Amino acid sequence: MTLEDDNTYMSLAMEEARSAMARNEVPIGALLVHKETGQIAAVSGNNTIRNSDPTAHAEINVIREVCRATGSQRIPDYHLYVTLEPCTMCAAAIAFARIPKLVFAGSDEKGGGVLHGAKFFDQPTCHHKIDIQHGIQNQEAAQILKDFFKSKRKT
Amino acid sequence: MTLEDDNTYMSLAMEEARSAMARNEVPIGALLVHKETGQIAAVSGNNTIRNSDPTAHAEINVIREVCRATGSQRIPDYHLYVTLEPCTMCAAAIAFARIPKLVFAGSDEKGGGVLHGAKFFDQPTCHHKIDIQHGIQNQEAAQILKDFFKSKRKT
Repeated sequence: MTLEDDNTYMSLAMEEARSAMARNEVPIGALLVHKETGQIAAVSGNNTIRNSDPTAHAEINVIREVCRATGSQRIPDYHLYVTLEPCTMCAAAIAFARIPKLVFAGSDEKGGGVLHGAKFFDQPTCHHKIDIQHGIQNQEAAQILKDFFKSKRKT
Repeated sequence: MTLEDDNTYMSLAMEEARSAMARNEVPIGALLVHKETGQIAAVSGNNTIRNSDPTAHAEINVIREVCRATGSQRIPDYHLYVTLEPCTMCAAAIAFARIPKLVFAGSDEKGGGVLHGAKFFDQPTCHHKIDIQHGIQNQEAAQILKDFFKSKRKT
């Protein structure tokens, strides 16, 4: 993927984040793309409230969708784009799904589990090797979160 | 709950673990029970292969079922029984679901995320307080895993 591709995919994930915010969900968006063809396989925002499902984070939603579509619990041919650093639950799900590359925008000191908290992929018990890139469109990611928490304070 | 209750619930979770093994899934079973009434709300084994879903661990299956049934992503009125130490993904899901008590049988040095690995609940970024008990029926739990890996070596 080129940097232009990365930006295109992340912009689509940002749209999902904004859609999630519009339905009062935590505004995070994710996208899975086939690593060879560049074809987008799934996009989703958080749906924990809509689905009454604490595991329905954007990342897990797209992982479930592509796994179901491919008939496998492992999807090593797909790259994941997320608008915010995944939490520990999602990091572990990414490892179970054998996703080889993760690109995320903003980092998350409080809830993140990749660069922060449990630092899941750095644990000696994690044997999944993953290419991680972050920082792309991080200002846009920060703005979305800022807008979300501002709207929360008003209600 | 009395120790007798704990044993009853764990035995039912063990049955789920054996059922999971019979369909070639990793043999782990889980059960959610209402903390006041003692009524069993959901039981499940691992279904990652059957559902083509890497997140379909026994714990997440019962959490999703009870959340859907109660219409909430938080289920603080339910206690969780699991035959093996939850992995990091499940530990995080337990925290998101606000489950106040976790009872598990065997511990899991390689895949566990509670006593081992990421030690999720011990992270300073985890603000969910949980009562954890373990060791009940741990010999039965160890035997099930032993039987499973023995059957795997034969195939």
